[in-house]
Amino acid sequence: MALKFVTYRINFICDTMRGMNNIAIVLVNTTHPGNIGAVARAMKNMGLQQLYLVAPKTFPHVKATARAAGADDILAKAIVVENLDEAIVGCGLVIGTSARLRSLPWPLLNPKQCAEKALFESQHTKVAIVFGREHAGLTNQELAKCHYHIHIPTNPEFSSLNVAAAVQVVAYELRMMMEQDISQPDKHFIDELATAEEVQFFYQHLERALKQIDFLKQTRSRRFMLRLQRLFNRARLEKTELNILRGILTAMEKLTGRL
Amino acid sequence: MALKFVTYRINFICDTMRGMNNIAIVLVNTTHPGNIGAVARAMKNMGLQQLYLVAPKTFPHVKATARAAGADDILAKAIVVENLDEAIVGCGLVIGTSARLRSLPWPLLNPKQCAEKALFESQHTKVAIVFGREHAGLTNQELAKCHYHIHIPTNPEFSSLNVAAAVQVVAYELRMMMEQDISQPDKHFIDELATAEEVQFFYQHLERALKQIDFLKQTRSRRFMLRLQRLFNRARLEKTELNILRGILTAMEKLTGRL
Repeated sequence: MALKFVTYRINFICDTMRGMNNIAIVLVNTTHPGNIGAVARAMKNMGLQQLYLVAPKTFPHVKATARAAGADDILAKAIVVENLDEAIVGCGLVIGTSARLRSLPWPLLNPKQCAEKALFESQHTKVAIVFGREHAGLTNQELAKCHYHIHIPTNPEFSSLNVAAAVQVVAYELRMMMEQDISQPDKHFIDELATAEEVQFFYQHLERALKQIDFLKQTRSRRFMLRLQRLFNRARLEKTELNILRGILTAMEKLTGRL
Repeated sequence: MALKFVTYRINFICDTMRGMNNIAIVLVNTTHPGNIGAVARAMKNMGLQQLYLVAPKTFPHVKATARAAGADDILAKAIVVENLDEAIVGCGLVIGTSARLRSLPWPLLNPKQCAEKALFESQHTKVAIVFGREHAGLTNQELAKCHYHIHIPTNPEFSSLNVAAAVQVVAYELRMMMEQDISQPDKHFIDELATAEEVQFFYQHLERALKQIDFLKQTRSRRFMLRLQRLFNRARLEKTELNILRGILTAMEKLTGRL
């Protein structure tokens, strides 16, 4: 009995640690290379490995290496990509940081809730946590690609966190969660989740089909599409569900005779 | 009764916020002025005000101001002292950060426990949270002046946190604790949720429309409908979303000419 429990614990701890390796930090359009270095250090301090840089202004750079203070390996294996879509390929869970509360609120997590969700799901899918530009954060379009937004609580009169500080807080909560083993089995998902790019293709298909059946008028289409993306992101589409929905869209298109 | 509760809440919120003003951050022998600036920014972001600098190597300095990124007021009113004793005069609770586990174990807190204790005691005494030198931390003598030590969980193979990152983590936990104390209902959903019967009507409409566009074959329809219900139930449809979805169904039906 005791041995069985020990085995279970060891498996669980291994799963949790493997989970950390499945969580990538994505920095979008970072301007200051020093911040990239500080992010690498914060990541390594907390046990994260995988860094994506979406079109950084200056990288690699001596300031990044200096601020990494020994986390050079994270910088060396950082992957530079052109846009956010490339960074989140294959990710079943995408979480974006948002300083402002948007006109269209998204499901919102605090850093602790983010850690709980990310660490649990990282045991069976790749997870991306996305941080925006130093001054402008993430665009609405980038935020719409996320299943959840994280809001780090701040002083409302001085709320703009340094990007490395934001990564530090999120990575710290992941570490806390990992060490505390708070995550518990959740049997919610039976099927494999759709990946970020599958979901993006579905949204494109959805928009196309809704235009063909004359549901989307040009003027209101952005807002309708945002509402629908928010709804489906909240539900976290499984692969099978996504296939059913695309089947419905195809049936609609056939009806219009345009397929 | 309700008024009494409101008064209680307001008093409580005031106590908690006054508490934050009673918590000082103390940096001992900081070498890099940039770190002092980053600490000031992290403090102001999280709503802390009072910074003590024990014999900093270089202060004030343009790099401190640059990294403060607008938290100049914290730097301007920072108090420079000669030694730790001067910084903690009048403090009823002193907590020191310690990377290493010492030969003589001290009562140890993690950042969350530190926040809980500091915020509670700050309502009736001054509290100091002390951070050590960039490379050497606090001396044993300095640590012995503390009531508690904080240990921030880290990757054991790369455990040395940047001092501003450490302040960020501790200040973040204080903010979390403060906001939890004055917590509000979850604002996750702005819109009203659809009622059970509205959702049932939607499912009936969905099934009807999917049959009309020949997506649902009689044999598999039960299973498809179940999958779709499971998906939408998981998302918890809001009224507005439900109206959009029914609008789409109506557009589909018009197309078949059966509406």
